[in-house]
Amino acid sequence: MKSRAAVLYGPTRSFSIEEIDVDEPKEGEVLVKLVATGLCHSDWHFATGAAPVRFPMVVGHEGAGIVEKVGPGVSEVQPGDHVVLCYIPACGKCRWCLSGLAALCDRGILLTQGAQLDGTFRFHKDGQDIAQFALVSAFSEYTVCPVDSVIKIDPDLPLDRACLVGCAVPTGWGAAVNRARVRPGETVAIFGTGGVGMNAVQGAALAGAEKVIAINLVDWKLEKAKEFGATHTINPTREDPVQRIMDITHGVGADATILTPSLVTPSLLTTATRATRKAGRTVIVGAIGRDPNEVETHPLDLMFMLMAKEVFGTIFGHNVPRIDIPRLLALYRDGKLKLDELVTRRYRLEEINQAYHDVERGQVIRGVLVFD
Amino acid sequence: MKSRAAVLYGPTRSFSIEEIDVDEPKEGEVLVKLVATGLCHSDWHFATGAAPVRFPMVVGHEGAGIVEKVGPGVSEVQPGDHVVLCYIPACGKCRWCLSGLAALCDRGILLTQGAQLDGTFRFHKDGQDIAQFALVSAFSEYTVCPVDSVIKIDPDLPLDRACLVGCAVPTGWGAAVNRARVRPGETVAIFGTGGVGMNAVQGAALAGAEKVIAINLVDWKLEKAKEFGATHTINPTREDPVQRIMDITHGVGADATILTPSLVTPSLLTTATRATRKAGRTVIVGAIGRDPNEVETHPLDLMFMLMAKEVFGTIFGHNVPRIDIPRLLALYRDGKLKLDELVTRRYRLEEINQAYHDVERGQVIRGVLVFD
Repeated sequence: MKSRAAVLYGPTRSFSIEEIDVDEPKEGEVLVKLVATGLCHSDWHFATGAAPVRFPMVVGHEGAGIVEKVGPGVSEVQPGDHVVLCYIPACGKCRWCLSGLAALCDRGILLTQGAQLDGTFRFHKDGQDIAQFALVSAFSEYTVCPVDSVIKIDPDLPLDRACLVGCAVPTGWGAAVNRARVRPGETVAIFGTGGVGMNAVQGAALAGAEKVIAINLVDWKLEKAKEFGATHTINPTREDPVQRIMDITHGVGADATILTPSLVTPSLLTTATRATRKAGRTVIVGAIGRDPNEVETHPLDLMFMLMAKEVFGTIFGHNVPRIDIPRLLALYRDGKLKLDELVTRRYRLEEINQAYHDVERGQVIRGVLVFD
Repeated sequence: MKSRAAVLYGPTRSFSIEEIDVDEPKEGEVLVKLVATGLCHSDWHFATGAAPVRFPMVVGHEGAGIVEKVGPGVSEVQPGDHVVLCYIPACGKCRWCLSGLAALCDRGILLTQGAQLDGTFRFHKDGQDIAQFALVSAFSEYTVCPVDSVIKIDPDLPLDRACLVGCAVPTGWGAAVNRARVRPGETVAIFGTGGVGMNAVQGAALAGAEKVIAINLVDWKLEKAKEFGATHTINPTREDPVQRIMDITHGVGADATILTPSLVTPSLLTTATRATRKAGRTVIVGAIGRDPNEVETHPLDLMFMLMAKEVFGTIFGHNVPRIDIPRLLALYRDGKLKLDELVTRRYRLEEINQAYHDVERGQVIRGVLVFD
């Protein structure tokens, strides 16, 4: 069938809106008609060349839609079911899935490979294969993916917000709740309050943190963070975050620090560990890497070691998709998790380049593509 | 009273053996006659200038001896008691002591300050104050320290080995047992098998690790590691440790890696995290810092974050001195902890410069000063 999609032909900082051919779902696969897809910064990394992928590719991984058709052997969902796409097609059989760490499923290596599980492609144009990202490719009207990549949800939930539980919400939320394991009464400092960081703020708040310190370079995002549960805000262009966090904690430091910017540099990691108490936790959520404009520093210093601090990497907020995606939507239904307030702007597929321009300029918390 | 001591007058890579004046113990203090002191590499860092201290100073912190006299208000020990000195004079009142983290006691900041708790000095020479290291200064025939700095032990234990439970043994042991929390059946890779690393090896083995991989540049230390429980050995001058650990673990990586060299460089940290499995633990025991001869690298990479790995600092192996020092000696008495085999050479105080020459050249597991 035909589908409009945003195709990346290279790291050109530009998507091409085209009509592509989408195959029928094969065994164990489903065809999904997308309703909405969140505009995650990670997808932009492929458009800028910050992360390598196989081109041409349709990226987008934070989608929700309606099952259009199922392939042979699929019994978990049927046409008409509402689903959230998940970029981790947890197999349920590897040592990580079986250890409660489905976010680390060995299938994760398939993220940028482009083909489906059987090694063949479902997207084509003029006879050429087009790669899929994370098996899902949500910047397309229609997509085909493994049934393991969809999580069925209640049909009354609004899909243009439910899509966010495919990435931004569990990633930020889980960084606080699962990875930093925030306990009631603690102090948590969250660097970055975008689509991911804002969810770390609300995760920390709901976990009972006494002080939730939001740090951002943009004042309106700090104001917004207060709506999500931040008790203190710091704008590093005006205040030194380490000094301010030490003041707030009477010289002890934060129990946990969470780093959510799309690029976590060595100097940001140093700042965070310095602002963390003895034996405290620092969680790296954003892509850790170098800033070419920054003098290289050694992020973990002697005090880090002597003060017995901890650094954790995390992916998908250490959530188990099949357990935690429904859990998050239940919290949304109960009014304990904010999704509506995360979506600050909506775009049509044809506006995707403008949308990422807005993302780059920090003008949105989360933008969402809504398909016609 | 007079005491022979090894005095550091600056970062001159040389101790001066002199007779100094030692005051009477004040309130809450004890006078200890040293019997033996382990030659920890950390003390040498002060002699080389790698770590700054107040000079002149008498360092040495891995000592054991006999209480000679007690000051006013001391009831915990009496003259004749055998004691191990501890460089962490845990106060029992700060938030860390009260959280099971006595190794992080706020008094730790006194390590290099040089004076006793009341701000005055107990060591002098020709009217000049001589600083003490970590309040104890075990490179002296006699020392004065707070009663909180001594742990009473059974009098039948050999003090020239018991001294090692003041630093090397709990530091390495605890890195495996408390910080990496090694569980039965796991695979643990230990970088460095000197006085500290060898204890991580025996800690991991006693905790039930199935595979204990010892890594060292010196073959005889690898052979020795087998006596302490290593099941596999790697000499990085002949084999790539990451590749070999991946081979041993069938491509999964070690559950935990423990870094015990006296200098843990960024590149060593990178090597260790790469050799660690998804969500696995890396414990930094040695002093983390730069090697001026090494091109700076960013030790935590994107794979570290995406694979949800963990890095932990630690001091004193996360042990609680008053609980764990007696526990380690009980294990020694039961034949479950090797101390005798750690001491590969003994020296007289006058031989201390030669002793550290041997340490620098990697010729000992642990050298011990034995006082006449």
